[in-house]
Amino acid sequence: MPAILEGKYAALMAAAADLKSDAVAAALYNVIVAGVEYLNKQCIRETLNSKVPAKEYFDFQADGKASRPINKALFDGEISEATWRALLFGEAANLDRDVLSRALYTGAMAYCATTDLTKSRDQKTPGTFFECYIGHFVAQRYGVNPEKQTSVPSLELINSLPTDYVFNLGTGKRRIHLPIKTSTRERVVQVWAHQRVLDGLHGRNRFRGLLACLAETNKQTSERGVVEVCLPGQWAVYQMHIAELHRVYYLDIPQKYVPLKEVYPFIHVTEFADFFQEADELITN
Amino acid sequence: MPAILEGKYAALMAAAADLKSDAVAAALYNVIVAGVEYLNKQCIRETLNSKVPAKEYFDFQADGKASRPINKALFDGEISEATWRALLFGEAANLDRDVLSRALYTGAMAYCATTDLTKSRDQKTPGTFFECYIGHFVAQRYGVNPEKQTSVPSLELINSLPTDYVFNLGTGKRRIHLPIKTSTRERVVQVWAHQRVLDGLHGRNRFRGLLACLAETNKQTSERGVVEVCLPGQWAVYQMHIAELHRVYYLDIPQKYVPLKEVYPFIHVTEFADFFQEADELITN
Repeated sequence: MPAILEGKYAALMAAAADLKSDAVAAALYNVIVAGVEYLNKQCIRETLNSKVPAKEYFDFQADGKASRPINKALFDGEISEATWRALLFGEAANLDRDVLSRALYTGAMAYCATTDLTKSRDQKTPGTFFECYIGHFVAQRYGVNPEKQTSVPSLELINSLPTDYVFNLGTGKRRIHLPIKTSTRERVVQVWAHQRVLDGLHGRNRFRGLLACLAETNKQTSERGVVEVCLPGQWAVYQMHIAELHRVYYLDIPQKYVPLKEVYPFIHVTEFADFFQEADELITN
Repeated sequence: MPAILEGKYAALMAAAADLKSDAVAAALYNVIVAGVEYLNKQCIRETLNSKVPAKEYFDFQADGKASRPINKALFDGEISEATWRALLFGEAANLDRDVLSRALYTGAMAYCATTDLTKSRDQKTPGTFFECYIGHFVAQRYGVNPEKQTSVPSLELINSLPTDYVFNLGTGKRRIHLPIKTSTRERVVQVWAHQRVLDGLHGRNRFRGLLACLAETNKQTSERGVVEVCLPGQWAVYQMHIAELHRVYYLDIPQKYVPLKEVYPFIHVTEFADFFQEADELITN
């Protein structure tokens, strides 16, 4: 069990207070390149039995361990150094769309899959890495670091409330509420609830709710199957009765969520790659 | 590690489909009496360093393991068979109030503390036991078994939504929404969110939201300290901006939540023992 990413992960955490910075971009680069190299050279790929129409999955295996499912079309072990640098240092919008989608997914899985294979029971650092990874892109794009609390205006005094990442884009502007999760499962109602609290505290849609996720795949260990765990009916009820999320971004977008943007209550689920094109529009109308 | 409660727990689960039944009362009785006997005879009590004013805590210890914190004034290893039978078979309202509070707490801890000491990493069955225990009292009191889903009336068809326990008390009556948790921690916003969904689907306050909890104690392993983890400011924001919970019941009521019923937004936090007196009032006005 080589602890190949632990030092690089620690360096990323040390830089993460200034999430938009080139220091974070460089630390992410170091984690990702080392992770991809480990996965390419020291692991084998074994095809999984995908139950998801039109998607193929495999897992990485090494030393008797297996990673989470990896989307075959999205994981690209041959991404160039120039592409990584463009992605991480603020030129993502200039990348070819397919390359951008693959790089975003591969960068996230470089850490998550390597951790699956080299650590035991570590569910925490993949979540923290992913939050830092997505948070970096958004912070860099808007040139603003996020906070993890919001002030609470009230007739009586309550000082602040912990939140997911929120971005203050300046007086009179919309702000961004950016929960980030590797997968949502049953706890996702929290995201709508926090959006509701922000709407209640600060006015409806003052904060644009953008949920960013990696994937919803689940491995069925017995038969090496892969399914996507989706709850579109529940999401619709939350969007109708709790609050409105403006976007749900995925790196590997679950098939059952694709149609949600076409029908009431219009949950706009799309690839995170779209963020780089629509970032300005998100906050101006 | 004697698996002393596993068979009795399995028997409880087998009966739990009819939660209001005497079969569940009998199965609860068997679990609780065996748990209390184990704790009395095979475990030692070691005082913990309580940081909670006016409350003393200890833990049970056996075979190098230690239980969660136990409230010294509420855990009563000498509760009589007659009291257990009154509590579990529908005569709780006739018990002396102090005896009722101690029996309720001791019954819950009989399973939870024994499981802490006799199983490894089992966080699931104490939660399930506690849900069954509290659910039994409410189901028995109203003479109705709960469901774990609600139908979703909508302009388009969505069949049903999973929920915590909900009790249908008949046409034209209020219903009960009863989330049950051994402790709430940061996930408690889910409870307000589900209440909001029920309000949105069925009309505000059609469902009375009653949150039932065991305690909010946390053991600080290093110094054997006990604190209560409370977030009264956050709860107030949820009560103001998401939905209204009608009651929050505890078996060991956290000190910082006691004053919440006195000030806006009036979260009525009280002992679960009160439920037996106010059960009728909860659904009629």
